[in-house]
Amino acid sequence: MTRSALALLALVASAAMPAAVGAQRAAPPLPAKVDPKVAALRDAALKDDVAWDIVEGLTTEVGQRLAATEAEARARSWAVAKLKALGFRNVHVETYQMPVWLRGEESAQIVAPFPQQLKLVALGNSGATPAGGITAPVVVFKTYGDLANAPDGSLAGKIAYVGNAMQPAQDGSSYGTYGVARFVGPALAARKGAMATVIRSIGTDHHRNPHTGGTNWPDGVTPIPAAALSVPDAELIERMAERGKPITMKLVLTPRFAGTGTSGNVVAEVPGTDPKAGIVLVGGHLDSWDLGTGAIDDASGVAITTAAAKRLLDGPRPRRTIRVVWFGAEEPGGFGGKDYARVHGSERHATAGESDFGADRVWRFEVNLPDSAKPVADRLQSALAPLGIGRGAGVGGDGTDVGPTLALGVAAIDLNQDGTRYFDTHHTPDDVLDRIDPEQLRQNVAAWTTMLAIVANAPEEIGAVTPRR
Amino acid sequence: MTRSALALLALVASAAMPAAVGAQRAAPPLPAKVDPKVAALRDAALKDDVAWDIVEGLTTEVGQRLAATEAEARARSWAVAKLKALGFRNVHVETYQMPVWLRGEESAQIVAPFPQQLKLVALGNSGATPAGGITAPVVVFKTYGDLANAPDGSLAGKIAYVGNAMQPAQDGSSYGTYGVARFVGPALAARKGAMATVIRSIGTDHHRNPHTGGTNWPDGVTPIPAAALSVPDAELIERMAERGKPITMKLVLTPRFAGTGTSGNVVAEVPGTDPKAGIVLVGGHLDSWDLGTGAIDDASGVAITTAAAKRLLDGPRPRRTIRVVWFGAEEPGGFGGKDYARVHGSERHATAGESDFGADRVWRFEVNLPDSAKPVADRLQSALAPLGIGRGAGVGGDGTDVGPTLALGVAAIDLNQDGTRYFDTHHTPDDVLDRIDPEQLRQNVAAWTTMLAIVANAPEEIGAVTPRR
Repeated sequence: MTRSALALLALVASAAMPAAVGAQRAAPPLPAKVDPKVAALRDAALKDDVAWDIVEGLTTEVGQRLAATEAEARARSWAVAKLKALGFRNVHVETYQMPVWLRGEESAQIVAPFPQQLKLVALGNSGATPAGGITAPVVVFKTYGDLANAPDGSLAGKIAYVGNAMQPAQDGSSYGTYGVARFVGPALAARKGAMATVIRSIGTDHHRNPHTGGTNWPDGVTPIPAAALSVPDAELIERMAERGKPITMKLVLTPRFAGTGTSGNVVAEVPGTDPKAGIVLVGGHLDSWDLGTGAIDDASGVAITTAAAKRLLDGPRPRRTIRVVWFGAEEPGGFGGKDYARVHGSERHATAGESDFGADRVWRFEVNLPDSAKPVADRLQSALAPLGIGRGAGVGGDGTDVGPTLALGVAAIDLNQDGTRYFDTHHTPDDVLDRIDPEQLRQNVAAWTTMLAIVANAPEEIGAVTPRR
Repeated sequence: MTRSALALLALVASAAMPAAVGAQRAAPPLPAKVDPKVAALRDAALKDDVAWDIVEGLTTEVGQRLAATEAEARARSWAVAKLKALGFRNVHVETYQMPVWLRGEESAQIVAPFPQQLKLVALGNSGATPAGGITAPVVVFKTYGDLANAPDGSLAGKIAYVGNAMQPAQDGSSYGTYGVARFVGPALAARKGAMATVIRSIGTDHHRNPHTGGTNWPDGVTPIPAAALSVPDAELIERMAERGKPITMKLVLTPRFAGTGTSGNVVAEVPGTDPKAGIVLVGGHLDSWDLGTGAIDDASGVAITTAAAKRLLDGPRPRRTIRVVWFGAEEPGGFGGKDYARVHGSERHATAGESDFGADRVWRFEVNLPDSAKPVADRLQSALAPLGIGRGAGVGGDGTDVGPTLALGVAAIDLNQDGTRYFDTHHTPDDVLDRIDPEQLRQNVAAWTTMLAIVANAPEEIGAVTPRR
């Protein structure tokens, strides 16, 4: 029995018995009615082609779009042209400055006890080895917890390997639990004296494609070379370690920080009729890592939210302005989302939500709405149910790009995508158009269209909330 | 980017850039250390055979165990003998009275426009047709929301069909969203005048096995005949409806309420050394529906929690008493859980948690702990991670059996099982031993063993919490 069912059954008290037995049993609440106009928009969106057109276009005509590089600038130009062609209003770019990190050479071998070539990639923000590489003993930690328990200074002169036991999770929660080994593991290894670190990819596949992704250096920690091995290569090292013989690795990683560069957010709007009702902010991120073409991360997110907004753009003006943002520089540290909140945080926002978890179907929604707008969630529940979307019991408010805006107290509506296979290709060379299932992409557009039709036109006041965290 | 990752990244502030740029960045918190004794118990449990022995035994030697029947009484005797043989203390049965519902004949045909036989089963607590059945026009509602929108009185003399678009969800949340059509849909149809109702099974498979399950009759609503069609049969009716011709169904359902009967909870304990530290309550439910042998619902739940407690029983006495309860009569309305709270609610409980979502692996844990015991959750996170178990961002507190106890303010620890395939066989004749994967069953035992080893021995005070709902 699950939480939603439990809550519902609580409403019918000690029901489930004939009327002669038991205490008072209240009738359950009825579901909210579905506005036929909303249903029509939803069902038409199941035939959408705009989202595919955007994903196909970005991945074919631009490809990889590493933050603050010339490729990301080209992607912004592509975005502006596309959004104008679609008829959006107030299309423009908002730029900001940020540090530029560029990938270099990357290779590794086990030198002893069993010489073998490895597949790895540098983590974003990684430090560098000398051009000729380093050769050092490897200390094997099967988990991040094991690394944390290592005595300070014990890794001096060594390469720290950190494994993980990540499994797929539909809600992506395993990314948080196991992702720490990438987010902050290299900094921890550095503080314990390691000269470099290699982690098992934060991924759920068994291909020889390593998963990149950003790592973070707290104040006072000098970046060390930090890379991710493919899962099979990580398992190879663990099997060698089980044999009890010392492991020596040669590692070449020559990424570099290339000063300060320009990134930017691309903004477009569907103007509303009631400026006081607040903006409905939606979007995804335009930048990508440099290994694939950023199809599921996150061309699909900008495509889905834009295609949904386009459906509102083509109908009667909604009450609230819908603002679509193709955020820049999410991957290396959420720069676009922070800049958006800096520039626009003082404007009245009704809700914010982003699409940044691939292109598989939406399976659940969760909200963080003020009491005045609780009926909005009930209407979402009724209208989304025919798409196979359930209502989660948690509090909404996900997202790196809208996170800084949500932190200001803006209400949140999350449309959760099925993440079961997301971490099979996340941040790998396989993040390309072939991963997109057009039918599931259309279901996403239908879900976002439904959400926008309900939220942008909701007669209720949607004021501030307590952020989830 | 998911919620856990977002929260973690918030800790490292605007990190992800070289130290020369950006504001103050704090070091992330370190993971909790894993007690080697806990790790040893966990790893040994991955070779457990006790859980399999219980599931195999109950499904072979008892089989179906419908609540308040002679079969459930036999199951209680089996349970007492097994728990005593395993060495548990204070093994006993606590009985209570409840209404008895028994299945009768059940069959249905489409009479017109296209005569076809249908596969269906009565819902628990269903009313009955006359012995010769009824023949009536069918009104087709594709969703529960559509049924709710039907005018009052519009279903007089008719059979209401209610469909759903349920999809699998790892966390089971779709059961709540779509299950309403079963939990309360028949009562709603009755209030609108329907003489009977047939729903599309609350299930995610495409076999011709209908899914039974309890339905609820609020005060003042007279039970009507209520049944679930297999998914293919439901789709058949929807395809017929799309052809626009009237549909007539013959329906025979002859279940009956058979007065008041006896059900009971089976209780066993691992005595603790510190009676003031509170009881750690774990368990599952002993009763089952009558179509299969209740392997995944819920022989596996009592087996997993008992096997884990057995591992603590065989070691040094834990600080807290571990109480294992094989609850009775969960399926028709949670009678065992309510009776437990009535009898034991005034005793000091530290935590409560149940296993009632199949036998597939635990993928996530969530807690509802007082501030004084927050480090317990951190230790769970470190110790469960090697089993592939992540920490969810939600608040724990699931379960029909422990629900009434949790409602009293007892802290909750949920070990969430992967529900992706649970609703393929839930409440069908296919809920038999063949559905149990021994490897995943063992992972469950390891997870519960880890939880018990940490929680039953936690030095922290674990006091009252605000219940999740």
